[in-house]
Amino acid sequence: MQEIIDGSKPTDWRPLDPQNTLYMDLANGHRVVIELAPHFSPQHVANARTFAKEGYWNGLAIMRSQDNFVVQWGDPEEDAAKKKPLGSAQKKLPAEFTSRDASLAKTWTRLPDVDGWAPQVGFADGFPAGHDAKAGTYWMAHCYGAVGAGRNEAADSSDATELYVVTGQAPRQLDRNMSMIGRVVQGMEWLSTIPRGAGAMGFFDKPEQRVAITSIKLAADVPAAERTKLELMRTDSKVFNELVESRRNRRDAFYKVQAHHIDLCNVPLPVREAKG
Amino acid sequence: MQEIIDGSKPTDWRPLDPQNTLYMDLANGHRVVIELAPHFSPQHVANARTFAKEGYWNGLAIMRSQDNFVVQWGDPEEDAAKKKPLGSAQKKLPAEFTSRDASLAKTWTRLPDVDGWAPQVGFADGFPAGHDAKAGTYWMAHCYGAVGAGRNEAADSSDATELYVVTGQAPRQLDRNMSMIGRVVQGMEWLSTIPRGAGAMGFFDKPEQRVAITSIKLAADVPAAERTKLELMRTDSKVFNELVESRRNRRDAFYKVQAHHIDLCNVPLPVREAKG
Repeated sequence: MQEIIDGSKPTDWRPLDPQNTLYMDLANGHRVVIELAPHFSPQHVANARTFAKEGYWNGLAIMRSQDNFVVQWGDPEEDAAKKKPLGSAQKKLPAEFTSRDASLAKTWTRLPDVDGWAPQVGFADGFPAGHDAKAGTYWMAHCYGAVGAGRNEAADSSDATELYVVTGQAPRQLDRNMSMIGRVVQGMEWLSTIPRGAGAMGFFDKPEQRVAITSIKLAADVPAAERTKLELMRTDSKVFNELVESRRNRRDAFYKVQAHHIDLCNVPLPVREAKG
Repeated sequence: MQEIIDGSKPTDWRPLDPQNTLYMDLANGHRVVIELAPHFSPQHVANARTFAKEGYWNGLAIMRSQDNFVVQWGDPEEDAAKKKPLGSAQKKLPAEFTSRDASLAKTWTRLPDVDGWAPQVGFADGFPAGHDAKAGTYWMAHCYGAVGAGRNEAADSSDATELYVVTGQAPRQLDRNMSMIGRVVQGMEWLSTIPRGAGAMGFFDKPEQRVAITSIKLAADVPAAERTKLELMRTDSKVFNELVESRRNRRDAFYKVQAHHIDLCNVPLPVREAKG
């Protein structure tokens, strides 16, 4: 894998767009970097940008950590009247479970492997995704690191205030059931190692167990010198296809049986520090 | 799911066999319970039992925690001459990557869903497994919580001193490449939340970051009153099939699109405290 990355050209990589990047700074000093996916859920992403710009999440906390499933943050206040105001964000959003955005079709790179959860799987805008060619729809897959908007029973009950991140075996049964706003591209370990909550569904039963969020900011609002400069391998590049192939059939001598297969959520999506 | 478990009969459950159960007690006070899988890798399991009986792992440590992959323990001593002696365990074991044990065929419950990693998948002896009907072989799948024997490049270079546990997205490319000794049935959260190591492959670069193991004992060697009494749902029972079906097609109103599918490693394997 390192060999393939080393052989890549600068044009095989794309910089993280500061308008599509959130920095979640935890009170324990760690930073989690999230890439937003505006072509999958434009209205949820617009709300998330507004929340970041207006400091909605600052001082809130991660209040759920369920083993082999998700962590989740938002406003822990249960009394609707006392909840933090949403500022200039939209109060009501439609469900954005699937998308017909042209950008997704344009960047679509199909994985040749069988998948039980979707007619086709591959990568769109750099995100692991499912695709239904008949319906013309794309949706982000619930792979490790995927960020989705929590909701109640109604499909249109998410407003992007509560976000969850997959920290376990891909819960792909949630695909096409949730509005997905992006994925973690750096700092997953600060979320995946949060002690599990003892309450139902991994909610912390004691408020002091919550992990405080200092701030979640849009990278574009942070001075350039303080940004985490990352670049991601383009999933519609030749080198990415080589990388996938090298993982479908491991060439190193450690492997005695080759899989001739890879699952969508096992494909590595290389991220590196940007030069300069 | 709880509804189905509540409707189960006592005969739908099997107790953990103390001869096939390891208790890993960590210095931080937490216990991890592992069910051994003698029909998958009889010689590795025999060695693991010997190590537990003779206290081989006591005082050693978890020395690797790699995000979205594995934790691993064993003897951190790199100088072969100074390594802890193996006692009466076998010094050399064959690779036990697949098995033709009759018990596996007898308990085999096939999952109807497509899988890219194996001709068939299902459950054998209660473990998630792959099966090649032509070859007559079974092998444990690398699902979350699976316990395998670390090795070097040679297929027969594992001796069950170094064990790893899957803590991330199922690395099924390792199926049929490793000798698998069992799976964690309780306490996964004490392994999955271990801070990740900063060294290559998640090894801790500072010895003080290692997680000390007080002891790993065979349950049969522990007084009955100190045992963790658990029982597991039989995977060849009718109620287990009902459970799988309820997860393939979620009946609750939260789900707007049903998957009509489940991946082997997404199937829950219920464990509960044994009564009495």
